[in-house]
Amino acid sequence: MAAPRSGTGEVPQWFYEDLVPGRSFDLGETVVDGAEMLAFAQRFDPQWYHVDEKLAADSEYGGLIASGWFTASLFMRGYVDRVLSRAAAAASPGLEELRWKAPVRAGDTLTGELHVLDRAPSATRPGLGTVQLAGSLSRRGADGDVPVLQLRFRGWFARRPT
Amino acid sequence: MAAPRSGTGEVPQWFYEDLVPGRSFDLGETVVDGAEMLAFAQRFDPQWYHVDEKLAADSEYGGLIASGWFTASLFMRGYVDRVLSRAAAAASPGLEELRWKAPVRAGDTLTGELHVLDRAPSATRPGLGTVQLAGSLSRRGADGDVPVLQLRFRGWFARRPT
Repeated sequence: MAAPRSGTGEVPQWFYEDLVPGRSFDLGETVVDGAEMLAFAQRFDPQWYHVDEKLAADSEYGGLIASGWFTASLFMRGYVDRVLSRAAAAASPGLEELRWKAPVRAGDTLTGELHVLDRAPSATRPGLGTVQLAGSLSRRGADGDVPVLQLRFRGWFARRPT
Repeated sequence: MAAPRSGTGEVPQWFYEDLVPGRSFDLGETVVDGAEMLAFAQRFDPQWYHVDEKLAADSEYGGLIASGWFTASLFMRGYVDRVLSRAAAAASPGLEELRWKAPVRAGDTLTGELHVLDRAPSATRPGLGTVQLAGSLSRRGADGDVPVLQLRFRGWFARRPT
C-alpha cells in the first residue's frame, strides 16, 4: 500500500487511532450564497421550489429553498476543510442515513459538526480502520440553532504507521 | 393544502397512486464532463484524488475520480427530468442508505434507474403518501454495466385529487 496521504495530499496529522469514539469536530460555518444555491439547483435539481422564485414565493415555502444535495455538499466542504484535509482518509463507502430536517435559504448561516460514534479495524483491509461518524449542519438563528441536515456514515482511515 | 404541482410547477401527470410497487423508470443517460466534475470537487470536496491530477494519476486511482456528491447530484438530475418533472412530488425527508460502489471518471457514460419498492398513505399528512424508492447509476462498459451509485430513499407524493 502507498504511504497514506491527508486530504490535501500531504503527510497526515490524524490517523484511525486519533478518531476516538466521543471525539467531536467543529466544521466551521458558511453563509448560503443565493446565486450559487440557485445555480446548483438549475443544474442538478430543477424543481420549482428550488428554481422558480415566483412560484416558491407564492407557496407554503415562502421563497426558494436549497436543493438537499447542495446542503449536503456544503456539509462535505466543512468536513474536508476541518477534518479530511488533515486525516489519512481513504474513500467512503457511503451513507447509513441522511435527513433533511428543515429548509435552507439564501443568507442562512450554517454551522457544521462531526462526531465519532464508533470504530473498528477493517476485517478485509489490514492497513485501514472503519469509523462510524455522525454529521450535522444547523441554521444559526435568534432563538438558537435549528438542525437542517443530519447524516450518519462510515469512513475508512489509514492506521498510524508503526 | 395548495393544489399539487409537478416538479416543473405544472399540473402533475403522476400521483402517489401511479407509483405502484414494482414499477421502474429509466432515468436516461449522462456523460461525465471532466471540467464540471473537477469544478464541483474544487468547490465542495477538494480532496487530492478529486482535484490533483498528478497525485491522482500516480496513485491507486490512476487518475481523478468524481466526488461522490457530484455522482449523487447527477443521479438527482435524471430523477427530476424523468420522474419528478411529471409527478406531484413534495420534498423528500432523506435517504435510508447510499453506496458509492465504484469510482466515476471523466467521460464515463452513466445510466440511471429508479424502482418503486413500497408505499403507504402518510399517517400524519392526509393529502400525501410516502413512497420507498431505490435508485442507481451504472457505468456503461464494453463488458456490461457496472453500478457506481445505489441509494434507497423515501419520497412524499400528493394523492390524486378525487
